[in-house]
Amino acid sequence: MTEKVDLIVKNGTVLSFDENDSRFANGAVVIKDGVIVDIGEQFDILDGYEAKDVIDVDGDLIMPGLINGHTHAAMSALRGYSDDLPLDQWLEQVIPAENKIMGKEMVYWGTLVSAAEMIRSGITTVCDAYFFEEDAVRAFVKSGMRAVCAQGVVDFPTPQWEDPETKFEIVEKFLESFPKDEESTVYPALFVHAPYTASPETYHRARDLASKSGARLFTHLAETEGEVEDIKKKYGRTPVRHLENEGVLNENFTAVHVNWVDEQEIEILSGYGSSVVVCPGSGAKLAAGVAPVTSFINAGIPVGLGTDGPASNNRQDLFYEMDILAKLQKVTSKDPTSIKAKTVLATALFLGAEAVGMEDRIGCLKKGMAADIIIVDLTRPHAAPLFDYPSHLVYSARGFDVKTSIINGRVVYHWGKVYPFDEPGAIARLFEIGNQLR
Amino acid sequence: MTEKVDLIVKNGTVLSFDENDSRFANGAVVIKDGVIVDIGEQFDILDGYEAKDVIDVDGDLIMPGLINGHTHAAMSALRGYSDDLPLDQWLEQVIPAENKIMGKEMVYWGTLVSAAEMIRSGITTVCDAYFFEEDAVRAFVKSGMRAVCAQGVVDFPTPQWEDPETKFEIVEKFLESFPKDEESTVYPALFVHAPYTASPETYHRARDLASKSGARLFTHLAETEGEVEDIKKKYGRTPVRHLENEGVLNENFTAVHVNWVDEQEIEILSGYGSSVVVCPGSGAKLAAGVAPVTSFINAGIPVGLGTDGPASNNRQDLFYEMDILAKLQKVTSKDPTSIKAKTVLATALFLGAEAVGMEDRIGCLKKGMAADIIIVDLTRPHAAPLFDYPSHLVYSARGFDVKTSIINGRVVYHWGKVYPFDEPGAIARLFEIGNQLR
Repeated sequence: MTEKVDLIVKNGTVLSFDENDSRFANGAVVIKDGVIVDIGEQFDILDGYEAKDVIDVDGDLIMPGLINGHTHAAMSALRGYSDDLPLDQWLEQVIPAENKIMGKEMVYWGTLVSAAEMIRSGITTVCDAYFFEEDAVRAFVKSGMRAVCAQGVVDFPTPQWEDPETKFEIVEKFLESFPKDEESTVYPALFVHAPYTASPETYHRARDLASKSGARLFTHLAETEGEVEDIKKKYGRTPVRHLENEGVLNENFTAVHVNWVDEQEIEILSGYGSSVVVCPGSGAKLAAGVAPVTSFINAGIPVGLGTDGPASNNRQDLFYEMDILAKLQKVTSKDPTSIKAKTVLATALFLGAEAVGMEDRIGCLKKGMAADIIIVDLTRPHAAPLFDYPSHLVYSARGFDVKTSIINGRVVYHWGKVYPFDEPGAIARLFEIGNQLR
Repeated sequence: MTEKVDLIVKNGTVLSFDENDSRFANGAVVIKDGVIVDIGEQFDILDGYEAKDVIDVDGDLIMPGLINGHTHAAMSALRGYSDDLPLDQWLEQVIPAENKIMGKEMVYWGTLVSAAEMIRSGITTVCDAYFFEEDAVRAFVKSGMRAVCAQGVVDFPTPQWEDPETKFEIVEKFLESFPKDEESTVYPALFVHAPYTASPETYHRARDLASKSGARLFTHLAETEGEVEDIKKKYGRTPVRHLENEGVLNENFTAVHVNWVDEQEIEILSGYGSSVVVCPGSGAKLAAGVAPVTSFINAGIPVGLGTDGPASNNRQDLFYEMDILAKLQKVTSKDPTSIKAKTVLATALFLGAEAVGMEDRIGCLKKGMAADIIIVDLTRPHAAPLFDYPSHLVYSARGFDVKTSIINGRVVYHWGKVYPFDEPGAIARLFEIGNQLR
């Protein structure tokens, strides 16, 4: 008797990234209802299944999809609009431009183009944060991506609300109207912008709403030295200690960036079971800083890896981001052993899943996990020879090496073609939106 | 009357990178005998020519090919063999492995696979340095690349010579037997490994041989803090001052890496008209350091950009290298304005050409320059929208965006296909060579 399943991916090297780092030289993954129902050497397992579809990867690499722990996907509309400026001038240029184009259209099309960029480079889950986030949700649903969609919260007026007093009505509506379908691959969250743009009361209310609704709470924290100084002046404490003092830290909390913290603050974050997502490329490009990733990991803090928004980085490719994470850790610590390729990979996979509260579903390939799988081409010259997979994936591979992306058991990208939507049409719409700024 | 020419590349945005930064919105480049004979708006110039071949780039970007100022191409054979180790352990692992496989076969096939990697990512000129360099020359000739091929010189035994006393016989033979064809795209050079592996006498002799033969002299210099300490102990001077004292610095000299120099040493290099090639990705991955690129440029030193060898980086992609150059400058100086995208591009183009003594031939597109041209795809989502070409090329584009590479008027790469040689065959040979280390 054979079991009927939806999809078998076979005939490649499977790197599972499970607790045992299981690898299968001639491996296969069996998928039903969006979930992995079997995984192993293909000759051991495939006799038991009859699949509607089979993908023969012909020797390529089969691995879990990558998790982008932080972006503002809609900001692709502002990609490259303003670079190489000091932060104050950057804000002066970008914020008026952003306010001019921000709205339902910009968020939908900007997010959709970013989704195309991400699934092309093997990102299967993204944690997004922006305004008009219900339109980002629409785009991510359309794209087929798995997405944690965080509505942005800030104490000043935005194109989404004139009166900041009304913002939590909008947030509550966002949480209530969120797709509740069991099969859904989008999940609600809240994103309070930062301690310098949101009051303690705003953090309290967001924390309580997050807990009540089961949504995760994210915030930008300790991104620049200037922020640390400003928060100390205003509240008498550094950013992490300020949020601790306000009762915001808990297991449901993820701090993003976290470039400027001392050893004691790392212990504080660890003690509350809070998580961190770092954005090394953005931190370097904006000269904001380099997060102490090795110290976070040593303290047992789950660390995720984010690209940040495409107006800051300007590329949403986690293969690239893994490489620069490793290189920045090494060169700033003057220690080439300070982080290893395997650890770097963890931040984009199972450790990154933990950092956003999704370790029961994504980040490795094993029975019962979501079928979020990518196929990496190993035939091009920069993959030759191949002594060590983690080294290759971190230091040689790039997003373009991804041949196929599968999310929740569905092929969303294969060899140059994005399936769930009209990619050239979305790009054309984004150019029209960008043209409003010329 | 129309003039008969070999190739016209037309119907794209031409970025010339000439002295006036000329751009042509509907541009064309006209090529004859490997040289650019005309360039401009296509409707202004094309009536005058009749071409054997025409490439219609359909709105893509036409720009000069990139110049990789430093690699050890043959070391692709050791890509990823040893990573994340301290320098002493890295040397302990890599040098015996390298000695085991180094030879004519390893150099030929390793170089050929690296050539494929480079022309796929828009590198049209490379400055290579290794042993058995006559076999690298064979590979570069086969590949169609423009290549400065530097025979390595070091004071200890190597697989190329048992007795270091004989090394200059080999070097002289290399220089004498070098292809002297006027049409040739390979050029001879010398590479003395470093002040800690070569005596002052070796530097003197290499300098004299270089001057006599018209070859350029390269050396690794001031790569690590440890090297600076060692050279000070041994010679009483820092590496740059040591080579100045030995009379090695002149206009024909290019120092590679140069991470650890003071302001006065920068003035010394500038005073002699010497050049610098930096390798930011390698410097970061090996935790060697970050070169003061902005200070070099302010001092008027021609600065080139190199990938370094694929055992150190592990990717030969100058688009990636431009991005990390910018980010490392910004984050280590804590100043996001410290280098601009246009300046970064210059290091991979006309400034890089000057750094290796080839500014009369390559680095920009204008009449009389070599027809080394790349076509960059602008249709993918990470290119949308597009406000500023330099920003896009440095912060968003990657080598994979290169659609076509033309060297000396010849199409060597187009959309996934390397033309001058059997790429899959070369990759298979490199895997065989790598397998000797398993």
